[in-house]
Amino acid sequence: MITLSSDFGSPYPAAMKGVLLQHSEARLVDVSHEFPRQDVRAAAFWLREILPYFPPAVHLVVVDPGVGTDRAAIAIEAGEHVLVGPDNGVLLPAARSLAPDDEAFTVYEISDEDAESSTFHGRDVFAPAAGVVHEQWRDEDALAALDDLTRTDEHVELRLPEPTIRDAAVVGEVLVVDGFGNVITNLPGYTVEGCEEVDVNGQTVPVGETFASVPAGQWLVTVGSHGNVELDVNQGRGDEAFGLDAGDDVRIEL
Amino acid sequence: MITLSSDFGSPYPAAMKGVLLQHSEARLVDVSHEFPRQDVRAAAFWLREILPYFPPAVHLVVVDPGVGTDRAAIAIEAGEHVLVGPDNGVLLPAARSLAPDDEAFTVYEISDEDAESSTFHGRDVFAPAAGVVHEQWRDEDALAALDDLTRTDEHVELRLPEPTIRDAAVVGEVLVVDGFGNVITNLPGYTVEGCEEVDVNGQTVPVGETFASVPAGQWLVTVGSHGNVELDVNQGRGDEAFGLDAGDDVRIEL
Amino acid sequence: MITLSSDFGSPYPAAMKGVLLQHSEARLVDVSHEFPRQDVRAAAFWLREILPYFPPAVHLVVVDPGVGTDRAAIAIEAGEHVLVGPDNGVLLPAARSLAPDDEAFTVYEISDEDAESSTFHGRDVFAPAAGVVHEQWRDEDALAALDDLTRTDEHVELRLPEPTIRDAAVVGEVLVVDGFGNVITNLPGYTVEGCEEVDVNGQTVPVGETFASVPAGQWLVTVGSHGNVELDVNQGRGDEAFGLDAGDDVRIEL
Repeated sequence: MITLSSDFGSPYPAAMKGVLLQHSEARLVDVSHEFPRQDVRAAAFWLREILPYFPPAVHLVVVDPGVGTDRAAIAIEAGEHVLVGPDNGVLLPAARSLAPDDEAFTVYEISDEDAESSTFHGRDVFAPAAGVVHEQWRDEDALAALDDLTRTDEHVELRLPEPTIRDAAVVGEVLVVDGFGNVITNLPGYTVEGCEEVDVNGQTVPVGETFASVPAGQWLVTVGSHGNVELDVNQGRGDEAFGLDAGDDVRIEL
Repeated sequence: MITLSSDFGSPYPAAMKGVLLQHSEARLVDVSHEFPRQDVRAAAFWLREILPYFPPAVHLVVVDPGVGTDRAAIAIEAGEHVLVGPDNGVLLPAARSLAPDDEAFTVYEISDEDAESSTFHGRDVFAPAAGVVHEQWRDEDALAALDDLTRTDEHVELRLPEPTIRDAAVVGEVLVVDGFGNVITNLPGYTVEGCEEVDVNGQTVPVGETFASVPAGQWLVTVGSHGNVELDVNQGRGDEAFGLDAGDDVRIEL
Repeated sequence: MITLSSDFGSPYPAAMKGVLLQHSEARLVDVSHEFPRQDVRAAAFWLREILPYFPPAVHLVVVDPGVGTDRAAIAIEAGEHVLVGPDNGVLLPAARSLAPDDEAFTVYEISDEDAESSTFHGRDVFAPAAGVVHEQWRDEDALAALDDLTRTDEHVELRLPEPTIRDAAVVGEVLVVDGFGNVITNLPGYTVEGCEEVDVNGQTVPVGETFASVPAGQWLVTVGSHGNVELDVNQGRGDEAFGLDAGDDVRIEL
């Protein structure tokens, strides 16, 4: 199984699929091609949240503002999964969540010497690499044996920001806004557990288990499906109501 | 084969696919993840129109404004198909059109006790249920035997509105507007058959077999691919030209 | 393998998939359903660029402003590929690039007598034809033997416009603007090779190998992944910066 993730929209992912199918008969599953354009951190968040729900797979990821520069192309073996993509940190949070023990993953550099274009490495570097890895990876140590892969101890690091948790307040930031307008923060859900209402950036907001716990159009604090604190509006857009976007600070007083 | 339908946009459907693939090696086919947000009636219409074109399958449907409330999760056995989704009526029109005899379908309640989240039952309740159903459903009476399924005689009903048909006029309403702006009504196509023009909410409009039967930019009445009367503009948007949206009244005088 | 391409958006492609799966167990791969509405030339360009990356396949293409008129439905055998779609030229550039020798392809007319609707031939004519072709096409001369296919020497021609290349200037036009706002011209990439900057419609613009060769927000001329000259803005929209859209003239002085 090979999953595909990118910020390409349409129709560029189809060229990657064609190339993958030249190399492999694997099942192809789209994770998303609608990640925010060139937003490495947002993609890193979504991949960390979604990929662990998949059975063992090769995950092809192309969110790559540095395409054509000398940033490396890498493959990461993490538990029973392999991630393939640019060395810009986008794979790292997912690698840590897929690895059996947080940091127990191995990084390989992929040769991109033969790339046909300098603007579409998704088609010309990452897709062929993902196809070859999928076919070879059955055997133990298979990645190390591949011609185009070289084990490396270096890679670009990316860690999603951690909140500051004190007795009466938690201070963090918005990681992403989803397509519904739900504001997903980096605050862990347990910080609002048991509260009936909290103070969000100076506004008092009820805490609810579900959107439907408040009337339509009302805002609320909830714990999203990823376990983080979310700022939402029932049947509306939390980002507009709270005036918040990715990267903005969030301070919750309990 | 398992089909997926939701109003989730991207990337949430991918988490459902990961979970399905943990349970089953079935082929996965997306029907749509772009159904109008939380619009149970629109989704019910599209599912009724599209699912009968599929070979026997399990159909996972998540348009679920009541997620996290005490609305039940259900599976419906309808002919050679099984529908899995929330008990809010969204599955009913499709169930009737898939069942060999209109009302000859069976409803099962799905246990959602083990749901990890109260906001993403698509991932935590419906996808695991659809995966298990797909694996078990080969045998007759298999659904009744599943641990997490209990046959029930109760379910929320939903019937798409029926038009009023008189000699010289038919009165109905707009069911949905599609992505092209075509206004799809609940009026059966035969009511305009043989007419050269009709009166729509007071405007005289030509009846055509195809969009191309009128010049580009001109409005027309046609019979859509679902057999209903449609209000269209050739190479334009019918909803804007006619000033109509889902739920609005349509009166056609012949 | 059957690929699907259309300008349908969502959810209409799902009905085509259901019909295909009634006829065939082939793998289905979406190329795009977001082609610009009824823009035959744009679709023809993308198909020519993308389909050659696929292994042998049946390619179902529905961009069809003339649906329901007397335009023919055709299948084209081109090398190890078969294209199925309307006879409006949309298949031709791809057919020439898939055929072993530019014009060495064969055209068949598909009977559409049994079409259920006159507005959705994707579902009622092209999908059944693609499904049947996929199942029968293994045998040599199989297409000629199919009941609903008749070899024909006539078809609507479509050639993407060719640029005029002189010593000091190349004159062409914009073929399409992609979803990133990159302006894709019909000028071959070699015309700007070795140049540090060129004059585009009167403006001096740097030539770069990658987007990242200029600062964010700056415009540049590059050679896109399809080998053509592209007018881009690093992390911005080239169409807005250059004020250009599909069909507009582009004059580059070297």
